[in-house]
Order: sequence, then C-alpha cells, then structure tokens
Amino acid sequence: MATTQQPNAVQPMLTDLYQISMAYAYWKSGKHQDESTFDLFFRKNPFGGEYALFAGLEDCLKFIENYKFQKSDIDYLQTVMPDYIEKEFFDFLLNINMNDIKIYAIPEGSVSFPRVPLLRIEGPILKAQLLETTLLTLINYASLVATNAARFRAAVDPSKKFYELGLRRAQGPDGGLSASKYCYLGGFDGTSNVLAGKLYGIPIRGTHAHAYINSYQNLEELKNKELTDRITGESRPFVQLCLKYLDELGPILKVLPDQTHKGELAAFIAYATAFPSGFLALVDTYDVLKSGVPNFLAVVLALHECQYEAVGLRLDSGDISYLSLEVRAKFIEVAQKFNLPFIEHLTIVASNDINEDTLHSLEKQGHAVDIFGIGTHLVTCQRQPALGCVYKLVELNGIPRIKVSQDIEKVTIPGRKDLYRLYDTNGKALCDLMTKTDEPAPIAGERVLCRHPFFATKRAYVTPTSVQCMYKLYWANGQIQHALPAWHEVRSFAQQQIETLRKDHRRNLNPTPYKVSVSDSLHLFLHKLWMSSVPIGELA
Amino acid sequence: MATTQQPNAVQPMLTDLYQISMAYAYWKSGKHQDESTFDLFFRKNPFGGEYALFAGLEDCLKFIENYKFQKSDIDYLQTVMPDYIEKEFFDFLLNINMNDIKIYAIPEGSVSFPRVPLLRIEGPILKAQLLETTLLTLINYASLVATNAARFRAAVDPSKKFYELGLRRAQGPDGGLSASKYCYLGGFDGTSNVLAGKLYGIPIRGTHAHAYINSYQNLEELKNKELTDRITGESRPFVQLCLKYLDELGPILKVLPDQTHKGELAAFIAYATAFPSGFLALVDTYDVLKSGVPNFLAVVLALHECQYEAVGLRLDSGDISYLSLEVRAKFIEVAQKFNLPFIEHLTIVASNDINEDTLHSLEKQGHAVDIFGIGTHLVTCQRQPALGCVYKLVELNGIPRIKVSQDIEKVTIPGRKDLYRLYDTNGKALCDLMTKTDEPAPIAGERVLCRHPFFATKRAYVTPTSVQCMYKLYWANGQIQHALPAWHEVRSFAQQQIETLRKDHRRNLNPTPYKVSVSDSLHLFLHKLWMSSVPIGELA
Repeated sequence: MATTQQPNAVQPMLTDLYQISMAYAYWKSGKHQDESTFDLFFRKNPFGGEYALFAGLEDCLKFIENYKFQKSDIDYLQTVMPDYIEKEFFDFLLNINMNDIKIYAIPEGSVSFPRVPLLRIEGPILKAQLLETTLLTLINYASLVATNAARFRAAVDPSKKFYELGLRRAQGPDGGLSASKYCYLGGFDGTSNVLAGKLYGIPIRGTHAHAYINSYQNLEELKNKELTDRITGESRPFVQLCLKYLDELGPILKVLPDQTHKGELAAFIAYATAFPSGFLALVDTYDVLKSGVPNFLAVVLALHECQYEAVGLRLDSGDISYLSLEVRAKFIEVAQKFNLPFIEHLTIVASNDINEDTLHSLEKQGHAVDIFGIGTHLVTCQRQPALGCVYKLVELNGIPRIKVSQDIEKVTIPGRKDLYRLYDTNGKALCDLMTKTDEPAPIAGERVLCRHPFFATKRAYVTPTSVQCMYKLYWANGQIQHALPAWHEVRSFAQQQIETLRKDHRRNLNPTPYKVSVSDSLHLFLHKLWMSSVPIGELA
Repeated sequence: MATTQQPNAVQPMLTDLYQISMAYAYWKSGKHQDESTFDLFFRKNPFGGEYALFAGLEDCLKFIENYKFQKSDIDYLQTVMPDYIEKEFFDFLLNINMNDIKIYAIPEGSVSFPRVPLLRIEGPILKAQLLETTLLTLINYASLVATNAARFRAAVDPSKKFYELGLRRAQGPDGGLSASKYCYLGGFDGTSNVLAGKLYGIPIRGTHAHAYINSYQNLEELKNKELTDRITGESRPFVQLCLKYLDELGPILKVLPDQTHKGELAAFIAYATAFPSGFLALVDTYDVLKSGVPNFLAVVLALHECQYEAVGLRLDSGDISYLSLEVRAKFIEVAQKFNLPFIEHLTIVASNDINEDTLHSLEKQGHAVDIFGIGTHLVTCQRQPALGCVYKLVELNGIPRIKVSQDIEKVTIPGRKDLYRLYDTNGKALCDLMTKTDEPAPIAGERVLCRHPFFATKRAYVTPTSVQCMYKLYWANGQIQHALPAWHEVRSFAQQQIETLRKDHRRNLNPTPYKVSVSDSLHLFLHKLWMSSVPIGELA
C-alpha cells in the first residue's frame, strides 16, 4: 500500500534547516531555556481586501501534540550537520517535546487583520523557534485559500452553491487536500475530492467528464435499452422514450432532432440508466444549444415518464452568462409546454475557469447559474498565491524585543500583548485593540483611546457596546486546553465571523480600511523602544 | 506519532468523485472493458516560455503500482453514493488493480511541449479513467515548479548557486515537499527543507533567522567567551579578539566601532562558537553596512586567528544589487589590508523576495551575489500558478476519438500516436513529430514532411541528423518496466535536456517558437475526423 511508502509530512523534520542550526547555537551557548514570546501574524490583507479568515489552528495543535523526532531523523541530521556538533545535542533533540510551550490563539475561523498576532507562542526559545516553519506552513496556505473561498462565495447571491474542483491543479496531493478542507471552511458547500470527503466529512459531488460523453459514438452501442419504472417496477423502453421526446422537443427548441449528436445522447442515456435519480449531464461536448440541451431534455422527459426527477446540467465552456440564460429560457418553455414545473428549476452548474472577477461580472451581466464548480483559480489563489505570515520574537526573559526596519510595515510591535475586538450596538466590529498583557482590558460602555501603532496623529476614542477578548490558551502543560470544534462548526463560525464585519469592510472594490489599533500605553512603549533601537544617522 | 493520524494522500481515493460516478456508469452499461487510449498533455507552455520540464513520472508509477482501494474506502463510498448503486460494483472496485493498464511516457526530466502527450495510457476505459485526476495532480505541479526552477536558474550566470526556501509559503506540508523535490530536478542545488533532504537525498542548507540575532542584546549575555584553536587546541579569548578586530576595522570601513549593534555582534559570536567552520551570518537585522558587515568581518578575522575559515553572509532585505557590490568592495579592501585573500571571496547569499524578473534585472545592473535563496515566488509559481495538463480520450476499441471545440487550441489530436524528436548536426532539437502508431518512424538523414496539426499551410521538410523515439513503455503486466533512475540522475538528465534546446527557444523574452508537428498522414487523418465531427452551421 502506498500509505507505508511515504511518511506523513506534518512532523518536526518538516522545517527549515536553520531552525536546527539555531537550536544548536542556542543549546551550545546555554541559552536554550531563555523564556521567549513569539508572535505569528501577517502584514497585509490578501486579495486587496480588508480581512483574512484565520485557519490551520487545529493542524498546528495536533502537530505540537505529536512533536517527536524519530531515531531515523536524528541519524539523518548527524550525517548532514558538521561533525563537530556535540553528540549530546542530538540526544537532547531526540527527547524534545512541547510540554513547556504555551500557545495562545484566536479561534480558528475568526476574521483577522494585519499585524494582529494570530498565535502568541511562549516558552523556551529553542523550542519556540523549532516550531516556526511548520506553524507558518500550516497557517499560511490554509488561511489564504479559506479567505479566497470566502471572497468567491461573497461575490454572488447567497442562494448559490459552490463546489471546489481544484485537486488536479493544486500543489500535489496534500496541496489538493488542504485546498478542499479550507475552501469548505471559507464557505464552499463541498468538493469533488473523494479523499477530502472521507477524511474530513466534507460533502462530495461529481458527475462525468467530456471523455465519458466521447466514449459513445451512437445509440447502437447501448447494451441496455430499458429502464425500470421507479414506482411500478415495470420495464420501460427507455431509448425509444428518449427518441420520442427528442422528436417532440424539435419544434419547441427549434432544432432538427436528427442533428443532435447521437453519441452524446447515448452517453446521457447510459448515465441516466446508472443514476436515474441523480441525472446531471455535461452538455457542452458538441454544441450546447443545438445538441446538448435537446438531448438532455429528451432524457429528462423520458426519466419523468419512468417517474424519476432529473437534477440538471453542467456547462464547462463558452459564455456562461449567455448560455445559462438561454438554457433557463428553454427550461421555462419546455416546462410550460409539457406542464412540468420542475423542469423550469432544473439545476444549472457552471465550471468554466471561473475566478473572482468572473463571478462579479456574471452578477452584473445576469446569469441563471445555481451552482459554481471552481478549481484552478481558487486553489492556486492566482490573484495572490501566498499570504506571507511571519513569526517574530517580541520578548525574551521578560525584556521586549523589536525588529526595526526602514520599511515601517516591517517594524514589529514588541512585548507580550493581548487582543480585544470592540463592537458597536449592531454587533459589528469597530476595531481591534492590542494592549500590553499587564494593562486592564477595555470595558464595554467605557471610552478607550485607540491609537495607530506607528503614526502618532492617528488616534480615536472608542466606546464599545461590547468587548471580546480574542485569545484563548489552546496549548499548555502538554495538552490541548479546549475540545476542538467539529469541522462543520468551524465553518459555521467562520460564516458568522464574516457577518460581524460591516459591508463596507467586506466589499470587493476599495473596501473601507478596518482599524487595528494599540492602547496608548502600548503605543508609547513601542515608540520608546523603537527610538532607542535606531541610532541617529549622520548625513555627510 | 503524527504519521499514524493522516493516511498518505497518494491513493485511489485522491480523485474527483466523477471518476467513480463514471466508473459505475461504465460498469453498469457493460462498457468498462472497452479498450481505451488516453493522452495526458498540456496546451500552453508556462511562464511565456517555449518549453516545460516533464516531472512527476516516478510518483505516477508508484501510485499505479500500489493502486488499491481499502475496505474503509468502499465503506465510505457506499455512504455517499446513491443507495440504488449495485453492491457488486463496490466488490468490483475493491478488487481493482492496474495490471492490464499500459503506460507509455517520455522520460522524467525531458523537455516537453504543448500538445505532445507526456503519457499515453492504454487499457480498459474504467481503469484508465480512474487514473485521471491523480496522474494530473502528480504531474501538473511537479512539471510547473521544475520548469519555474529551471527558468530562475537560467536567468543568471551558471556559476551561481540556488537554494529553495519556500516551505512556509507552499500549499501546506506536502506542497512544500513537492516544491523542494521538483525545484531540485529543475536545477536548484538544494533546499532548506529538512524532510525533503531526508526523503529524497537533496542537499540541505540553512543558518539563522532575524529572531536569532534579536535574541541577543549585548555582549554581556555571552556565557562562553572563548574559542578553541582549530589546530593547537589552545583556548583563545574569542570575544576580546572580535572586539580588537572591530576596532581595527573601524577606519577601514569608515564606521565607529562602538556604533555597531553589540547584540548583533554577540549573536554572531555565539553562532561562530557553535559553527566555527560554517560561519555564515545574517547581516541585515540592523544596518547592513554600518553594523552587520563590520561585526561580521570582526568575527571572520577572529575566527581566522583561531585558524577557522568563515563561509560568508546573507542579505535578506534592501537593494541586493547595490548592497552586494558594496559588501564585495569592502571584502576586497579588508582582504588587502589584512593580506587575507580568502576574505575577498567570502560567499554572499541573497534571499529577499526574489522572482525571475529580479534575477534578470540583477544580471543587468550587476551584483556580487554567489548564492540565491528563493522561496515564495518559486514555489507558488506566482507568474503562472497552474500548468493545466489535461487527460483526453483519443481512441476507443480501435476507433479514434476527437474532442472538437470552437477554440482550436482545445481540439484534440485523435488516435494512438508515437512521438519523435528530430535533431540537427549540433545535437539541437529541430522539432517534435507525432505519427500514427502504424506509420514507419522517421529515419536519420531522410527527409520527412512535418506539418502543423491544424493549419494546412504551415509545413516544412526536415532532414534530421538524428531521430529519437521519445516513448518508453514504463508500466505493463502489473510491473514497472524500467529501473527508475536515482533522483540526482533525473536532475542531470533534465539539465542535459535543456541544453538540447537552441538558445533562442530558451530565452526569456519572445523566445522563438519550437515546432510541434504531425506527420502528413496524421494531419490528414485528424482533419478528416474533425470535418466529420462538426456539422455545417446554418446562419439564419
């Protein structure tokens, strides 16, 4: 079995070598027990938006829970690291666990913002440093693709459904699995990925491909020409029924019944015979309106005569706006002519290289699509293929650390911090507020000064109707501290979280900036440290 | 252990549900044994280039070799598929293997071109169809990122080295592993990814991060102030030596020695103490030229006095062209002043958000970088995040199939085909030629008519100096038919393959199109089938 050949990738060895090099340098200097605090955060919202969905926490906690180097790992490291590395270090590494690490985090599925620590990691510097790469790997793509999914979802009317079909275009096998899992979190309704369905309980969907349609050339190839009536159990001449209805449809749809592709019709019939209650047909292999739709509707009517109700059709090429509206018009016409109202409401699925802009454009032009199937642009996050979370040291042995930079965006906010979200009377988020952990929390109904971290003049008084403390202690004493919610609960939570943002923060074009602020005390503390870390320059 | 929690993703369940639905429809119609041929190919070269490196074949073969549904897979499928699916189908699925499938392919690491089948898959349609998604998943990203790596590599002088650092920005854990593996195939010299090193034997590299530098505030924090002479074993006052050399460097580098950051110096000293023969320092935490470089060179000189030779420094921000040239100039000056020639040649590593354009621009502006460390833009393939391989039915039961489309790019080339590469006297590839499998192969020294598949007027006679038959039968009779080469051999082969392309096909801007042609016989065959598949339209 394939499962025995490659080990699971989520393990301590899934890291950058410099983490091991640093670990040795800390250990060799007797510094490895220094008590550190790291912040994990991103600097810029993805996709030109004003928020990101935070995802990947459960994966991080499971990774930490199972953190253990194997003997074979140590053997390998000994072969690749310099031979003067002391042997005791490798013994030390082999016995490491994360029991004296603490992880504070915002809940998975939360909306989150630049500079806000998603995770605050506390503990011996050697261990906290060893976690860096894997935590970033687990959070960066998960959060990015979940946010992408949420944006796709938000681009069209909430009544529409979304399925993720990106497996074949993802970064290899596990890239595909991550995509399916986190697109569901971001609001998608399911995936085509069978393994994701099995592992995560995500709804899976799928019908057939062009190759299936192409595999039939004519009706003579059909070995089975009958279908059993769903109620009576009687055997019905299904192929004949389909041909009869095709003839009747000719004048209504203004096509010559003998010009529809009979290989396509044969494929539809064979598929309907296999899935009489789940008939959904791909109609664009030849010509959507002249062949696919008449063939499809002939089978729909024949199925109805055998007391089955068809599901719908899929469009995978062409102008989705035009074609879906044309198809819906034909559905309406046929529904009236045959007095079968369900035909009007048959599902139209579209799956043709759709991205966020296409969705906005479809909403503007008008369309009749019920379900979107989206692959490439969703899972590759074409518009911005990386989130860019970073992991920065902010305190060591009780002394705050700052990373200065000529680029203000890259200056870190030093020290251990708490995070609060302040809400208005409508339950909408007003701003995020970071405080020093030794400060009192803001209080509902009381005015608090919220300051921009870097610009002294940008500041405002806020009187929140309610205040939410954002961090929970998720990992301490070698144990996950909260029962983790089921995956569909995380998904619902994420949807509720998006609703806590005002619409102007969520809109696609030029959204209103959401304010991430610091307390007055943290502002002053930051600036004092910043000033003392940057020597006065000398010009000439 | 984490390895027991998630199964390996490369397994039959890593597929789109529609493959299972189609399998049932084929089975139910008694069509599942129909003898099919599928082509796997891409339609457009990535990154605006004229070639792609083919990668992922070994993964595909191992997947096929181990193809087996587990009982738990079948149990799951039974819960999600309609309850009228016949139980015998699930028994059938449980017992499937790929022993009657044949896989022809071009060798892994080959240069490849649009429309050329990378794989030709033959066998019962149900099984060949079941392979589609996983094969695409395994080939699409592997080939894309290998090609990206090759392009990055080709952008600068061949003497430079390249390391892949993209793990934290990849599509999750296995995305990161795929990236490391296939960037190495594409010509990179190694990775930071420790697990990739362990699993694939790829060289790994890494030093330290900004957090490491930030973890020291001053020299007093250093517990160990000595270093042992490499030759004599004598203990030397290492901190004192560093400070002495920093003083001496002051006038040479035109800095005030007491203005360099002493926390940075402490971090360098601690790191050099741990890795005296492997000292490579990150010099941009504070100010590269006023702090990082003087501190670095002080440690280099002190190490030299203890008879160790330092490796170099890393730049992770700022203007890489300017900074690297400035740093090299300082190296030269210090090498002369101290009469230590090795200092002139210390390694300069650059790792600041580099993409292909940055590399071309650096080559134009001039720089003194020896090693590039590249992450985000490499592994996410920012410029084109998906290759878009497809999998098309081209023959069934001996009868050719064509997929027609109003978009000529999307028309498939029907039938079972062979593939030849024709070379000139210099061993450079002239063109690729597809033939029908029942045609004779082109012969070296004999003129052959090469035609554009779709445009009748585009054709040329070619007299190749040598002819290479591109396909090998890799899988048949339930066995891999060729011993697969070691990974470093695949890498060398890929580098040789790129050399078989003329430079004008390889250049970055407006490369000369490489011709993919068909034989006269295949051209006529294709057009006859195409014409007969498209009914004559009627305008009004």
